[in-house]
Amino acid sequence: MSCALENTSPDRKKTIAVSSRLKEGRALVEDVWSIFGAANLPTDCISLGQGYMNFAPPKWITDAAKEALDKIATNHYSPPRGLLRLREALKQHYGSQLNRDLDVKSEILVTSGADQGQYSVCTAFVEPGDEVILFEPFFDPYLRWVTFNGGKAVFVALHPPADTIEKPSSHDWTIDLEELRAAITPRTKMIIVNTPHNPVGKVFTKDELIAIAALAEQFNLLVMSDEVYDCLVFDGKEHVRIASLPGMWDRTVTVGSAGKSFAATGWRVGWLIGPKHILQPTLSASTRIVFCANSPLQEAAAAGLELARTNLFFETQRQEYTERRAVLCEAFDRLGLKYSLPEGSYFVLLDVSRVQMPENYSFPDSLIGRGRDFRVGWFMANTIGVSALPISEFYSEEHAKIGEAFIRFAFCKDLDLLRNAAERLQNLRKYIR
Amino acid sequence: MSCALENTSPDRKKTIAVSSRLKEGRALVEDVWSIFGAANLPTDCISLGQGYMNFAPPKWITDAAKEALDKIATNHYSPPRGLLRLREALKQHYGSQLNRDLDVKSEILVTSGADQGQYSVCTAFVEPGDEVILFEPFFDPYLRWVTFNGGKAVFVALHPPADTIEKPSSHDWTIDLEELRAAITPRTKMIIVNTPHNPVGKVFTKDELIAIAALAEQFNLLVMSDEVYDCLVFDGKEHVRIASLPGMWDRTVTVGSAGKSFAATGWRVGWLIGPKHILQPTLSASTRIVFCANSPLQEAAAAGLELARTNLFFETQRQEYTERRAVLCEAFDRLGLKYSLPEGSYFVLLDVSRVQMPENYSFPDSLIGRGRDFRVGWFMANTIGVSALPISEFYSEEHAKIGEAFIRFAFCKDLDLLRNAAERLQNLRKYIR
Repeated sequence: MSCALENTSPDRKKTIAVSSRLKEGRALVEDVWSIFGAANLPTDCISLGQGYMNFAPPKWITDAAKEALDKIATNHYSPPRGLLRLREALKQHYGSQLNRDLDVKSEILVTSGADQGQYSVCTAFVEPGDEVILFEPFFDPYLRWVTFNGGKAVFVALHPPADTIEKPSSHDWTIDLEELRAAITPRTKMIIVNTPHNPVGKVFTKDELIAIAALAEQFNLLVMSDEVYDCLVFDGKEHVRIASLPGMWDRTVTVGSAGKSFAATGWRVGWLIGPKHILQPTLSASTRIVFCANSPLQEAAAAGLELARTNLFFETQRQEYTERRAVLCEAFDRLGLKYSLPEGSYFVLLDVSRVQMPENYSFPDSLIGRGRDFRVGWFMANTIGVSALPISEFYSEEHAKIGEAFIRFAFCKDLDLLRNAAERLQNLRKYIR
Repeated sequence: MSCALENTSPDRKKTIAVSSRLKEGRALVEDVWSIFGAANLPTDCISLGQGYMNFAPPKWITDAAKEALDKIATNHYSPPRGLLRLREALKQHYGSQLNRDLDVKSEILVTSGADQGQYSVCTAFVEPGDEVILFEPFFDPYLRWVTFNGGKAVFVALHPPADTIEKPSSHDWTIDLEELRAAITPRTKMIIVNTPHNPVGKVFTKDELIAIAALAEQFNLLVMSDEVYDCLVFDGKEHVRIASLPGMWDRTVTVGSAGKSFAATGWRVGWLIGPKHILQPTLSASTRIVFCANSPLQEAAAAGLELARTNLFFETQRQEYTERRAVLCEAFDRLGLKYSLPEGSYFVLLDVSRVQMPENYSFPDSLIGRGRDFRVGWFMANTIGVSALPISEFYSEEHAKIGEAFIRFAFCKDLDLLRNAAERLQNLRKYIR
């Protein structure tokens, strides 16, 4: 009985070590969201950094949430797969787009936000040592979903628009298929596609997706397609779901979000659509990670999808976002700074290479070791009164330099705030070289 | 560029393999919650299996949720640490019990239910190969929190009451400290304590916790103390928090739940209380797993804790649960079956060794390879019309036999339903040998 004790070194250190998965990379360093969080910025700063709305979800959806709170069952556990009413609504919503009669028992999984769903896909499928391909810049949690589950992220660039393009669009961020092909090794397990793309705003074309799909087929890869901004595609651009391409259903999980769809980022209701052989293991993981998503807001999301079928909510919302995008982009035009006009999402990347900060400007310690974009972002928030997010955080450490040219503005804000921000931004003119 | 491709075997199988963490143990097998879910049971069966209420949360709390839905900010992202109002309410609630002035900036972390919080502790601290000690029977997700993060579960028994005890209590389930000590190896990282205990109902005594604490100190172990039923301790029994024992704050994370506290199991709001050096890495994990908990119901949970200070809600609720427990236990007394009177939680373990099923009774395939308790549970649900949960699922495979003597009844149900169940249970008499 005492042999176990004898194996214990008497000088075992009296600290409790964190796991090595957290020590890798920057997982324990203060993240960009915190550095540029409201607590660290001037109180009157207009925050266009983080992507949450300064307006409420539609009343007809919060009313549905209130009704759910008045019932008994919808205050208690949902099935780990999600409330049936929501899965039925998702079946309707996705069925025609994917041209499939989705099985609510096995092909739809509701999660505690799109993040937790995607984390669970990684827990279910990423074996220690497996490689997962991310397009840079990438929504920064992707990296941790992979590494926390023992995987290795492999980076493939979205190439920024050529300097010669006078008025670039997010469409001008391009992938090099040869680079993608070269990144695939025998350990590659999955490609994460993100369309519309955060932070670039790119909506992948059908041809690009067909090319990615061909590689996924050839090398038997899982595709996780993060499409949480699929309701926000502008100018008549077509949003293609990679899962709808021939042969791709069987290897693709499509990701959606009530928060993004209904202006309710704090509701934490997301979903995965895919074949049973992907969603069943993912359910096994998800059930153990969170058990189920919250019930009242699942019920409200279901009502939202049901009502949106007839009240043209998504069309109206798209129009509203198109106006919001215009206010911000016109401000950049007046300044003469280049940006990539986003085809989708609610983000614009502004090229800040030409912003010249005073040489003696003083920055806080939290910015030590971070890129120039962190300093530009900090300077703008404190001098101009508008905050945005540095983009080097959306690159791997080795490629962070590319991101230092850009900061990300969110336009999921009402027109008044955006117009106010647009005015303030004109004060940046004297710092442009 | 083509060398990577040449490494790829041409006959690479066209299936997408799930991770080995899911293949271990029973993670992909249908779990007990699904087998005994409503979909598989007779429609008029009274379900005392899963621990959710058949009544709503108090109206003064759902009203607070509705108010949150009428505001803008509380429909959007919370800080990953949780809404400040909820952290302030938790500081009040736990501060006096732990005799600490808790720092809301670093010593309180709100999570998407208590499960996700505890999963995140494991992600933050369990290194592949680390061992985590669980007391058997254990709340079954514990096992996956450990193994999904690469750890190994090590089991220490709670010994069932001696046969000689005529009217056992959950107090008569005991730990053998020598066995606990023997289970500790140089790879032991953490002990999971669960008080009040699910499924036993045991409230660990101060002496037991002092003994566990001494071992945790001696071998520098983290203690995760799952106390989600802390509001439900009966008969004046004292609930001791292991974090309040001398020297234990620095190595203990205490777990709580709005769902259990306020009869709202579907709200998915839980929390962790502990020192910064435990909660900061856990926040790093939690932020990447779910980003944040849902905001409207965090706001409601905050209101709940604030109001409960003056309206004596927890005292009233405890009294109500004492009555509920009595209805169920009296039904067992009338049947002459042994059970362990629970000191806390809303579960009772019934000893079903003496239940004799008809020899030719036919069971579904989902029960093949499962313990006798699965068959008794199934038989009862289908013959008597009351369902309960088999307990062998709460044991490791090697010790599942011990659990086969017991099934778990939940009494988080209104008195009418419990009285109805109590009547039906009398029909079991003819099957008792």
